Amino acid sequence: MPVDLTAPDPKSLHPVTGVTLGVAQAGIRKANRRDLLVVRLDDGARVAAVFTRNRFCAAPVIVAREHLAKGAVRAIVVNTGNANAGTGEPGLAAARETCAALARLISADASQVLPFSTGVIMEPLAVDRIVAGLPHCLSHLRTDNWADAAEAIMTTDTLPKAASGKYRIGGREITVTGIAKGAGMIRPNMATMLGFVATDASVSAALVRDAVAYAADRSFNCITVDGDTSTNDSFVLIATGGAGAPEITDAASDEYRQLRDAVTDVAVRLAQAIVRDGEGATKFITVKVEGGRDEAECRQVAYSIAHSPLVKTAFFASDPNLGRILAAVGNAGIGDLDVGRVDLYLDDVLVAKNGGRYARYEEAQGQRVMKQNEITVRVVLARGSASASVWTCDLSHDYVSINADYRS
Amino acid sequence: MPVDLTAPDPKSLHPVTGVTLGVAQAGIRKANRRDLLVVRLDDGARVAAVFTRNRFCAAPVIVAREHLAKGAVRAIVVNTGNANAGTGEPGLAAARETCAALARLISADASQVLPFSTGVIMEPLAVDRIVAGLPHCLSHLRTDNWADAAEAIMTTDTLPKAASGKYRIGGREITVTGIAKGAGMIRPNMATMLGFVATDASVSAALVRDAVAYAADRSFNCITVDGDTSTNDSFVLIATGGAGAPEITDAASDEYRQLRDAVTDVAVRLAQAIVRDGEGATKFITVKVEGGRDEAECRQVAYSIAHSPLVKTAFFASDPNLGRILAAVGNAGIGDLDVGRVDLYLDDVLVAKNGGRYARYEEAQGQRVMKQNEITVRVVLARGSASASVWTCDLSHDYVSINADYRS
Repeated sequence: MPVDLTAPDPKSLHPVTGVTLGVAQAGIRKANRRDLLVVRLDDGARVAAVFTRNRFCAAPVIVAREHLAKGAVRAIVVNTGNANAGTGEPGLAAARETCAALARLISADASQVLPFSTGVIMEPLAVDRIVAGLPHCLSHLRTDNWADAAEAIMTTDTLPKAASGKYRIGGREITVTGIAKGAGMIRPNMATMLGFVATDASVSAALVRDAVAYAADRSFNCITVDGDTSTNDSFVLIATGGAGAPEITDAASDEYRQLRDAVTDVAVRLAQAIVRDGEGATKFITVKVEGGRDEAECRQVAYSIAHSPLVKTAFFASDPNLGRILAAVGNAGIGDLDVGRVDLYLDDVLVAKNGGRYARYEEAQGQRVMKQNEITVRVVLARGSASASVWTCDLSHDYVSINADYRS
Repeated sequence: MPVDLTAPDPKSLHPVTGVTLGVAQAGIRKANRRDLLVVRLDDGARVAAVFTRNRFCAAPVIVAREHLAKGAVRAIVVNTGNANAGTGEPGLAAARETCAALARLISADASQVLPFSTGVIMEPLAVDRIVAGLPHCLSHLRTDNWADAAEAIMTTDTLPKAASGKYRIGGREITVTGIAKGAGMIRPNMATMLGFVATDASVSAALVRDAVAYAADRSFNCITVDGDTSTNDSFVLIATGGAGAPEITDAASDEYRQLRDAVTDVAVRLAQAIVRDGEGATKFITVKVEGGRDEAECRQVAYSIAHSPLVKTAFFASDPNLGRILAAVGNAGIGDLDVGRVDLYLDDVLVAKNGGRYARYEEAQGQRVMKQNEITVRVVLARGSASASVWTCDLSHDYVSINADYRS
């Protein structure tokens, strides 16, 4: 049951000139569901991506990295149902074969296709079914197909995830539209399991690379569901230049900052949608850590709280057992932390002051906030001026059910 | 429902000359249950301990550390129901008051008493109830009271945990007996929540300190239930000299090695009992990582597997979704790991070879092992000759229930 999240209205997803999308039911893992997506890019589109830091990165991640280094991307192919990870050499061959098959159909080189897979790990990929599904994708390419595309990449997601906006950049209207998937095995170390964002702005190749990393750090890299970094995490940014605006080439320009912020805005909405649809989630929790020496240590403390199963089950139970949050702060690995200066707030309620229960804190105050389905935990370290936020969800019975029964 | 664990037979717990134990129902948190323990030590007993590395260590941990530094310990007092953690200055005062009250009753100095608490965090400790319960403990001190003592320190434990043995050391028979508690918030970074082991061997103060650290590293520091390091973890070793054997003073002697191994044997049995009684546990899992460059990286990989909620839920479901284990290996933070050389075994079954599914592996083989309630996961990194083991349990619905309802 996602937290304050609904399926995107297809009409709210603005087409991006230069990008068309087609989906198919390829029967990769389950019959009668959309499980294959082709994203076709017009000539001149620039693409950059960030990928999982899991050493067991999936075959498609290895191949996508290789192809991206070679230059002009003409298409992206994504399958759900099978992650093609932990599959060794045959997995690499399967990813290459998928690219080659699509390349033949669009008269491109195999290296101009980026492959992405998501689903079960360590099972052979049914390349034949993917190849058989490609023509249907290609014969149904449309610019207004973002909602179907979001659906075709889902795994345990209960809702498709998409976000879109029109932004003023250098006095012109620019579109940014994206889709993402992911609900479990979510502690992206570069990006969520899969995220694709496109803009019709014209941006130099270097700045597309810069913008994708910038946006990832402020969106997909700030979320966690269960602390597990996937083998397939990938976040792709496409800039088509289809709006006909002048190319943005200066990293210090207002136009670039506006573009970067627009991409980040869409990425944050997608990243938060993933947490809202986190496996078994009943609550959306923002963990904000302030007063740290630097952003890294704030994030370290925030993740220690966001990953603690005891904190997460207390949120599930709406139980203001808030000492568990202090224990997680102490457990974050900051050796010289003076816990005697730490304050803890639950929304606007001061719970702990100088490392101990605040004298005027009453359980009823904590209980009131814990019953909400959106909660902000704020920890003040009082040792500097840096801050960081992480978004997460609670740990419920449904998380266990979903992951215990995933393959059955 | 603990995994292959039963309550200790009181007759199997050998008394340790020089140690008497008394318990009481002090009503600290719940009525009609044993919740207070006093361990009285004869003159000459030597005591050493290791404590939690959580920066938010509890008030009793701070006071126990202080008192231990001052020398001769005459008594230990342990309450359950309240951890006296996250309680600031009033918490420290409460721990000191407890020590002072017990010291008055046994004509000792407050600094000769070590206090320990376990239970709910961030609630004021009811010192008056503890103080009122002390006389009953003292009037019921007995050498054969280890089973009652084990019961009096339980929190969410479903069974008391105790272990005992007779060992030949330097040609003489020596006794080692211990108790422990803990079932959740278990990823000891120094020791389990609470563990107390006593021996009647005579050992120099320096070697008692050495032995407690040695045993902790090979027992309580090798287990995890949920990855949360408690604020109160403490492991105490007492050597009374009550057996009348010559003092062990040489760290290189056979006698010391025998003693160290005997203490470690009891500590391992206690540590494994904690995992077998892990909150909601239905399976006992040994994660063994071999072929690493050093023990630290093997342990890092083992913990990455043992902490992964996805791995733990797959074990709960008896689902051989073993790609999740590979993903956890890749996720362990070893930057130069060549995943193309990693092998994975489930008991005797080779599941993955050179980083991919082993060609002759069949799901039925994995399924057979997954259905057992004791399983060994073995990962071979093939980059060195070091190895390490970690013991853990699965993640079940009951874990969520126990922690969502803990305070209700």
